[in-house]
Amino acid sequence: MSDALKNRLYQIIFKTETKQGRAYDIFLILSITLSTLLIIFESVDGLFYPYRNIFSFFEWFFVIIFSIEYILRLYVVKDSKGYAFSFYGLVDLFSILPAYISFFIPAARFLMVIRVFRLLRLFRVFKMMRYVEESGTLIRALRASRPKITVFLFTIIFIVIFTGAIMYIVEGPQNGFNNIPESIYWAIVTVSTVGYGDISPQTPLGKLISSVLMIVAYGIIAVPTGIITSEMNNASKKAVKLATCPNCFSEDHVADAIYCNKCGNLL
Amino acid sequence: MSDALKNRLYQIIFKTETKQGRAYDIFLILSITLSTLLIIFESVDGLFYPYRNIFSFFEWFFVIIFSIEYILRLYVVKDSKGYAFSFYGLVDLFSILPAYISFFIPAARFLMVIRVFRLLRLFRVFKMMRYVEESGTLIRALRASRPKITVFLFTIIFIVIFTGAIMYIVEGPQNGFNNIPESIYWAIVTVSTVGYGDISPQTPLGKLISSVLMIVAYGIIAVPTGIITSEMNNASKKAVKLATCPNCFSEDHVADAIYCNKCGNLL
Amino acid sequence: MSDALKNRLYQIIFKTETKQGRAYDIFLILSITLSTLLIIFESVDGLFYPYRNIFSFFEWFFVIIFSIEYILRLYVVKDSKGYAFSFYGLVDLFSILPAYISFFIPAARFLMVIRVFRLLRLFRVFKMMRYVEESGTLIRALRASRPKITVFLFTIIFIVIFTGAIMYIVEGPQNGFNNIPESIYWAIVTVSTVGYGDISPQTPLGKLISSVLMIVAYGIIAVPTGIITSEMNNASKKAVKLATCPNCFSEDHVADAIYCNKCGNLL
Amino acid sequence: MSDALKNRLYQIIFKTETKQGRAYDIFLILSITLSTLLIIFESVDGLFYPYRNIFSFFEWFFVIIFSIEYILRLYVVKDSKGYAFSFYGLVDLFSILPAYISFFIPAARFLMVIRVFRLLRLFRVFKMMRYVEESGTLIRALRASRPKITVFLFTIIFIVIFTGAIMYIVEGPQNGFNNIPESIYWAIVTVSTVGYGDISPQTPLGKLISSVLMIVAYGIIAVPTGIITSEMNNASKKAVKLATCPNCFSEDHVADAIYCNKCGNLL
Repeated sequence: MSDALKNRLYQIIFKTETKQGRAYDIFLILSITLSTLLIIFESVDGLFYPYRNIFSFFEWFFVIIFSIEYILRLYVVKDSKGYAFSFYGLVDLFSILPAYISFFIPAARFLMVIRVFRLLRLFRVFKMMRYVEESGTLIRALRASRPKITVFLFTIIFIVIFTGAIMYIVEGPQNGFNNIPESIYWAIVTVSTVGYGDISPQTPLGKLISSVLMIVAYGIIAVPTGIITSEMNNASKKAVKLATCPNCFSEDHVADAIYCNKCGNLL
Repeated sequence: MSDALKNRLYQIIFKTETKQGRAYDIFLILSITLSTLLIIFESVDGLFYPYRNIFSFFEWFFVIIFSIEYILRLYVVKDSKGYAFSFYGLVDLFSILPAYISFFIPAARFLMVIRVFRLLRLFRVFKMMRYVEESGTLIRALRASRPKITVFLFTIIFIVIFTGAIMYIVEGPQNGFNNIPESIYWAIVTVSTVGYGDISPQTPLGKLISSVLMIVAYGIIAVPTGIITSEMNNASKKAVKLATCPNCFSEDHVADAIYCNKCGNLL
Repeated sequence: MSDALKNRLYQIIFKTETKQGRAYDIFLILSITLSTLLIIFESVDGLFYPYRNIFSFFEWFFVIIFSIEYILRLYVVKDSKGYAFSFYGLVDLFSILPAYISFFIPAARFLMVIRVFRLLRLFRVFKMMRYVEESGTLIRALRASRPKITVFLFTIIFIVIFTGAIMYIVEGPQNGFNNIPESIYWAIVTVSTVGYGDISPQTPLGKLISSVLMIVAYGIIAVPTGIITSEMNNASKKAVKLATCPNCFSEDHVADAIYCNKCGNLL
Repeated sequence: MSDALKNRLYQIIFKTETKQGRAYDIFLILSITLSTLLIIFESVDGLFYPYRNIFSFFEWFFVIIFSIEYILRLYVVKDSKGYAFSFYGLVDLFSILPAYISFFIPAARFLMVIRVFRLLRLFRVFKMMRYVEESGTLIRALRASRPKITVFLFTIIFIVIFTGAIMYIVEGPQNGFNNIPESIYWAIVTVSTVGYGDISPQTPLGKLISSVLMIVAYGIIAVPTGIITSEMNNASKKAVKLATCPNCFSEDHVADAIYCNKCGNLL
């Protein structure tokens, strides 16, 4: 394949600037949505059993299309390895792999729903850059609060292990707390305020300990919210800090600054 | 009908400035509340069965009143089409339509509870403008955070589809995860921390995946709160930061300041 | 009774400055706590049945003490009517009333736990004024956000009525949605993310509507948090606004103000 | 033991600066993690029953190691009593004590999972000081909001006691509300939005009261979040607002500003 053709294919498959590139991406998004819906509804036994052959046909049709596309992507991109191990590259691969694994483990093909993440391209295609930026703000806020969240997660894990073990001793297998891992699962269900009720304390002491855990959970649920709100406030403040000093190129100015805070120059 | 009469009717039905207009609106609010309660309690089988004829009579009584009113509204307003397709116009229509549909589908008449939204007029009638403004602030804050919320919703949807499919493979129909749509329903029940417990994981691996999902949900539930709190802070700040001192360029003045609090200069 | 004695009793019963007043209050708090625990544990059938006579004796003992105290309070206070209809006056009355009602309706005596609210005196007695102030900040923040919260509550009520009616039509009595009031109860259980699971959707359409409601609930739960956080930020800002201008007596200064923002005078 | 040796042991066991100290700490963390996993998985009956002897052996192996270590710690530290009653000292003790108690009460040995808290040393060992500082911020924010949280907790406790008693009267033992303590447990499960569903209201009046409680819970859950977010905002603000311009008295400078951003004056 000539370099010119390779480059043109690259423009169509990877970029959205050209008319064909845009058309290709829209076609791709429709295919992904359709094929994901196909997998989801195929699992509804009674309803679609009579049409299982049609479902199967279209499923393989999309697998073959996406497989060809994946190989093309690997071929036309300059940095093949870089693409293959990028987030999108891996998602593209895992979107087709389960189909081939399903020869050995039939249930595996449902894993193809992972292709729903290919739809993240949606934002790029429809020039929803504002949305991408917003998600950037969200991700930056989450990243900035990583140390706080790590500490928080460790606290949660220590609490659920400890409460799980105590509840295993207090309630025991006769009340549904079959072993410590299940007790820890119960503690997570409780602390996250999900509360299925598949396991629940039966003894007065167990109910007392649960009550304490739930009231503690109250305070705990407030912590990540506090962390993220606080970071997002900071992030939105930083986002207005745009002015660059023409003298010293410092960028860290508050929104309404008139003089540079590093060299005293008029902004 | 003369234009003067039409205008007077318009003042009574649509406005609240005149005495009759106010009286009419209060009568309307009482009728709506009463008729909504009627529909709600009519559904309680045992209790109200002996009175079903009285219920039926009043229900139709209100339907006829509201139908006449709807036609009058269409007639007296200048921009009939504009009204018909406005929020209030549509609510007014859907408040009576189900009664006529109930000739064909009896259960449909319960849809008339949609008329509860007509009560939004309440705020206007009782001059609770402050409340309307507040709801304006709320709506503006929500609108300003739309891109962030869109990104957030997509993330949630991708997560529940993906987790749903995995749990369908791990747990399967024998444990209540009958198909992927039901698994997705379970994932939404879990991620939103509602946790009915009608479907819950039975296998150790399923419990492990659920636990991870619940801890992730912790962080996720913090995000919309962070978004809205942050926007509401900005909204309330914008309302305050008005004056800049012409002398020292300080901007940190309260809304009704006359002199700069930093250099004493007249603002 | 002489006025001097009456005044002394007033100091002891209502105030905490004197030694006896403090001793009296501590005795009162212990009595309240003890008698509340008595009522709570009396309800545990099996365990305390053999001691029911002792329980009964102490219960009446406290009722008589509190009754005498209530009459004394009414007698020694200057504004008897003002006290009788104050928050504390009403709590004091309702703490003993159920005992007398229990002659006619035995179960009513458990209502005496209302006396737990008498313990609010705790904060005053132990000079925990800082805590009282803090609760003042909380209450002020809640009061300041009343319009927003009213709008929010109306929105919730409209949503649960509407969703309740729709789910009654979709699911119906055969799936546990016996009537619209119960469907509304289900909607509240869902929107508040409590999720008992005593009623849960069985049909695919019902599950779809529930899913939408739960995702909406996500956003909704963020609103009161946003409101209160925002108000508490404002409240804590206002709390630092202490400086009073010596010239114009204006009080609305920011924490670091140097000049009065009303008259330009040096603070 | 000579003082030099004692000091060297102190450096190894308590400090992480020396090479051996670090090696020792890493070994300790691995031992703790391994022995905790051992206890957790030992409780899974079916799976590990054939290996119960190996499990038992390693469990005692770790108990002996940790016991020797605890005695050494007591011996080499200068302030033995201070260490013994410090947080880490108590955790170290309670990590081995249950093993000896298990001679009398076999189930007690599962309490050894308390040793998971020894892993808090993790942060110090891996020089994750930033994380420690972050947790410091979290703890300071929580401590600063203690009065507000105390008031909040009392409010919750009063509400659940009161609602519990009312629901006991309304629903009674025939609907699962066996006694007031269990009703209070139900109220906590509801207010914290956990909602197991093991106890749930059956009567219309009970459902109405629950609905009110759930809507109140909405507001209540917002309070701790508001408190903590507000405190964390203050904490992060205090870290930033350092410099005041001597010329224009503006205070809105970033932490590392050299010139005032309002008047260009040297700070």
